[in-house]
Amino acid sequence: MNEDAITRRLRRSAPLIGDDCAVVPAPRGRDLLFTTDFSIEGVHFKRDSAPQEIGYRAVARSLSDIAAMGGTPLYCLISIALAPWTDSRWIAGFYRGAHRILRKTNTELAGGDLSHARELVCDVMICGSVQKGRAILRSGARPGDCLYVSGPLGGWRHRRILTPRLDFGRALSGKATACMDISDGLALDLHRLCVASGVAAEIESIPLIDGATIQQALHDGEDYELLFTAPPGRRVPGIRIGAIIEGKPGSLRYRGKKLTPLGYDHLQRRT
Amino acid sequence: MNEDAITRRLRRSAPLIGDDCAVVPAPRGRDLLFTTDFSIEGVHFKRDSAPQEIGYRAVARSLSDIAAMGGTPLYCLISIALAPWTDSRWIAGFYRGAHRILRKTNTELAGGDLSHARELVCDVMICGSVQKGRAILRSGARPGDCLYVSGPLGGWRHRRILTPRLDFGRALSGKATACMDISDGLALDLHRLCVASGVAAEIESIPLIDGATIQQALHDGEDYELLFTAPPGRRVPGIRIGAIIEGKPGSLRYRGKKLTPLGYDHLQRRT
Repeated sequence: MNEDAITRRLRRSAPLIGDDCAVVPAPRGRDLLFTTDFSIEGVHFKRDSAPQEIGYRAVARSLSDIAAMGGTPLYCLISIALAPWTDSRWIAGFYRGAHRILRKTNTELAGGDLSHARELVCDVMICGSVQKGRAILRSGARPGDCLYVSGPLGGWRHRRILTPRLDFGRALSGKATACMDISDGLALDLHRLCVASGVAAEIESIPLIDGATIQQALHDGEDYELLFTAPPGRRVPGIRIGAIIEGKPGSLRYRGKKLTPLGYDHLQRRT
Repeated sequence: MNEDAITRRLRRSAPLIGDDCAVVPAPRGRDLLFTTDFSIEGVHFKRDSAPQEIGYRAVARSLSDIAAMGGTPLYCLISIALAPWTDSRWIAGFYRGAHRILRKTNTELAGGDLSHARELVCDVMICGSVQKGRAILRSGARPGDCLYVSGPLGGWRHRRILTPRLDFGRALSGKATACMDISDGLALDLHRLCVASGVAAEIESIPLIDGATIQQALHDGEDYELLFTAPPGRRVPGIRIGAIIEGKPGSLRYRGKKLTPLGYDHLQRRT
């Protein structure tokens, strides 16, 4: 299949595709949210994974960022550099997986780019929206706030289906003081939230997925649960795991001991 | 440098970077434009090119798509998968080039993603806007329309600096019936415009860059001039190169002879 043939096929379910740009109305009285995430062979997935799963996860990862802001996804661009080993069956499977989660979350595929590379590289951009001034940032946590997660942790090894916490995130809007999604391990991501807020944190207990260890929950990537803070006494959904405290910005403690954020750094740990 | 260190450095000139999503106000009474373009080592650039030039061109290619719709760029996301051969000097050079064209076109760097791959892969998303209902599509060309380009052609081999035709594109809004940018050669891109509009075209003459041949103008990529149509008698800027005619959608003629679109197909010609 050549570029134009793939584009023609995509247009059947995504009529916005095919011009130099997608043209869509700007949502009235809202703020826009933009996020983009790579899915790269050998980094984010293995070549022999099911293409439907690769496509699904590639989109779900970006949707999770929209969820973390309390937003609603609107439009998606999928850029894909095909590797020599991909064939038209693989491509069809990939887009089937992508479409599944896009439909489920009412997000419209609006465009993208097609090219080729030695390994498969996919980049998914999502534009969402949120009520003006109501996006939940990483920087609003204050000492005394309680620290929560949206569900049990333990990393992608123990989780088959990644569900972006969109409803959960929207329920936090106007309630949580800070929020982000856990993509690189609880420790590293909590460190980032604390740096952004200029605070420290104490973890008291961590809810685990069946079969997962505390170490995996702390340092494995790809949980995609939400990590958030709220003042004590405020009713929020989720599981309380600790508290925000004063201290060196970004410094963490787990049950009274200093905790060093390891997690996944995409530039330090090269596979 | 690790991921967080690069992000910290980028935030100095791009304060929107650093949260799960960039949060920006939706422009009032406008349509949004979305486009994204890969720049891949060995496909779009050579490893030994100056990093400033790679960064500049990677952004300019997406800006050119905004120009083709008659739009104004607003926000940019840069995703970059670094190759093992890139070092912090290369990264600094790349972003210097990107920032140069972003500043020149008043476009704000709002986010992106950082990862690694075996070869360097960059994906640049731009969100722009245009007056409601005034985006110039590829599909509006009608038999009898005149066919124009915004400047002389001949491919990237003869052009050192790529300048997205943003002012030119905006001047066409409300005047041109169809427009696109020439990224894969005049013949292939005109073929695409004609397919989208359900028309055929006759090319009469082609303005050339110094040293370029007609074959290069017809079939080489990366001119990034605008290709557009307007009814006869309507005053538009640009150089007339032919006319839109009735015929099999997408079929082309050059000085009376059938012309086959070769151009650059990103999936057919693998380097």
